Amino acid sequence: MAVISAIFADWGTTNRRAWAVDRDGEVLDQRKDDQGLLGVKDRAFEPSFRAFIGDWLKAAAPAAPIVMAGMVGSKLGWREAPYVETPARFTQLVERLIALPDLDGHPVRIAPGLSAREDGRPDVMRGEECQLYGLWLKARAERLCVLPGTHSKWAEIRDGGLAGFRTYMTGELFSQLRSSGTLAQLMRPGAPHDDAAFQRGLTVSEGVSAGGLLNRLFSVRSLGLLAELPGEALASYLSGLLIGAELRDATAGLSGGTVAVIGSSRMTELYVSALEAIGVKAEPIDGDPLLRTALLAIARTAKLM
Amino acid sequence: MAVISAIFADWGTTNRRAWAVDRDGEVLDQRKDDQGLLGVKDRAFEPSFRAFIGDWLKAAAPAAPIVMAGMVGSKLGWREAPYVETPARFTQLVERLIALPDLDGHPVRIAPGLSAREDGRPDVMRGEECQLYGLWLKARAERLCVLPGTHSKWAEIRDGGLAGFRTYMTGELFSQLRSSGTLAQLMRPGAPHDDAAFQRGLTVSEGVSAGGLLNRLFSVRSLGLLAELPGEALASYLSGLLIGAELRDATAGLSGGTVAVIGSSRMTELYVSALEAIGVKAEPIDGDPLLRTALLAIARTAKLM
Repeated sequence: MAVISAIFADWGTTNRRAWAVDRDGEVLDQRKDDQGLLGVKDRAFEPSFRAFIGDWLKAAAPAAPIVMAGMVGSKLGWREAPYVETPARFTQLVERLIALPDLDGHPVRIAPGLSAREDGRPDVMRGEECQLYGLWLKARAERLCVLPGTHSKWAEIRDGGLAGFRTYMTGELFSQLRSSGTLAQLMRPGAPHDDAAFQRGLTVSEGVSAGGLLNRLFSVRSLGLLAELPGEALASYLSGLLIGAELRDATAGLSGGTVAVIGSSRMTELYVSALEAIGVKAEPIDGDPLLRTALLAIARTAKLM
Repeated sequence: MAVISAIFADWGTTNRRAWAVDRDGEVLDQRKDDQGLLGVKDRAFEPSFRAFIGDWLKAAAPAAPIVMAGMVGSKLGWREAPYVETPARFTQLVERLIALPDLDGHPVRIAPGLSAREDGRPDVMRGEECQLYGLWLKARAERLCVLPGTHSKWAEIRDGGLAGFRTYMTGELFSQLRSSGTLAQLMRPGAPHDDAAFQRGLTVSEGVSAGGLLNRLFSVRSLGLLAELPGEALASYLSGLLIGAELRDATAGLSGGTVAVIGSSRMTELYVSALEAIGVKAEPIDGDPLLRTALLAIARTAKLM
């Protein structure tokens, strides 16, 4: 077996993943668990990380670097890696790497997150910037990208970096409305996806203002109360309404081109199908290989391997 | 003391209120408790109602009527009073009254709710239609009205009835986002209203699409994360953002005139100040007297008193 030449990690708020890779970035081993920042007591990040991949540290080549991305670089993380403001070039992720004390002779680095500002409102991301960097390294193409999730991120790759980005709270709002309140009361828990209801929600989201959305949310309730949509279909209708609203705003002004939908979750599929339903071409792209591509480039550019 | 000539009630989902009135509708006594429909076990509405105002029944003039509005007329209530479809004239509330068996010789009636339909989406109200009827009886003016609440109702009084109406889930969404999730985490519980933050939220809601709202919701989080707004101010900012979105949608196309803001809660004041901040004239009007005016008119027109 090839020797471990680097350890990459994406350490988030609720879980973390890590990869042991060879000198070409090929995956030798991988791991994930639920010890996100929230699971780490008393800021004991080092013991927690050793418990996670301590065996890799022992097996790795001397001075093989550890490069991390994600919320581990936030104020609540292991060490703060201040945000780099967009517009930013991806190479700034290397220039603004944060160094921690070596672990058994292995250099440890955390990549910074990015911030954006639009009409005075700030926005932030941590972790997604590396996947976007990976996409740039792979394709060198300027394009609009989305990373669906609890908070989905839309970013425009331009000039070897990000022109800016926007976060949409769509996923979290859906979860909250589905789990409690007067809409949740009418929904059948655990109902499978209902595509007809999802498409209906997508249609209802067309041309709607912010306040119009607050009004149309109530239609989830009245359609249920009047038995015009079964309880099994209400969550899919709500999902279509919310995702449709996000997609129409995020792709407004887009003239041609294919949106890169980065991820590998069920939500990625949903976004691709919804984008196509509203007439926007979409390409699903697995995010993990992109992340590793970026962390490998960062390690090499920083002359850590 | 004048004799009780009628008993009026607004029996909702979570609480109920009742008034004992004389032949002119003047209030002789009033009561409220938290025995809304959800508090009534095994559909024991009659015993519950007797426990609430049984003494009034005994003291009232023979055959003094009981007239009720609200969710008591829903499927889950005492007896269903089917929705009257808008556009509807207020006199249809009398024509479509539902009779229950007399209580100790007192006739009992429930006023129906109203339904509306817009682009195939249904909407419903129960209780608010009587306050709107009361406003019509008082002023005989065609105007745009809002009843702020968990689900605020916007209705247009026209031709002695309602042209249509819309429900906005603003209040409930605010409550949900303030009580759990990633926005709530950053908010200081119980912080007083911060008018500067509220006004900032109002400003941010201008010209925003449905998806734009999903994006701007995240600014509550990023403003908090970056300490650009203190935890004490975040709920007021969110409130301004959501209420602003509602008001801009509901008053779009309004050319002059004064919006009637019906109610007596803190939220009524907030709606009046927010409407004025976005340049719309607003008049606060107490809702309870309107409700009693309507129920008195219903009782008289139905020849119950």
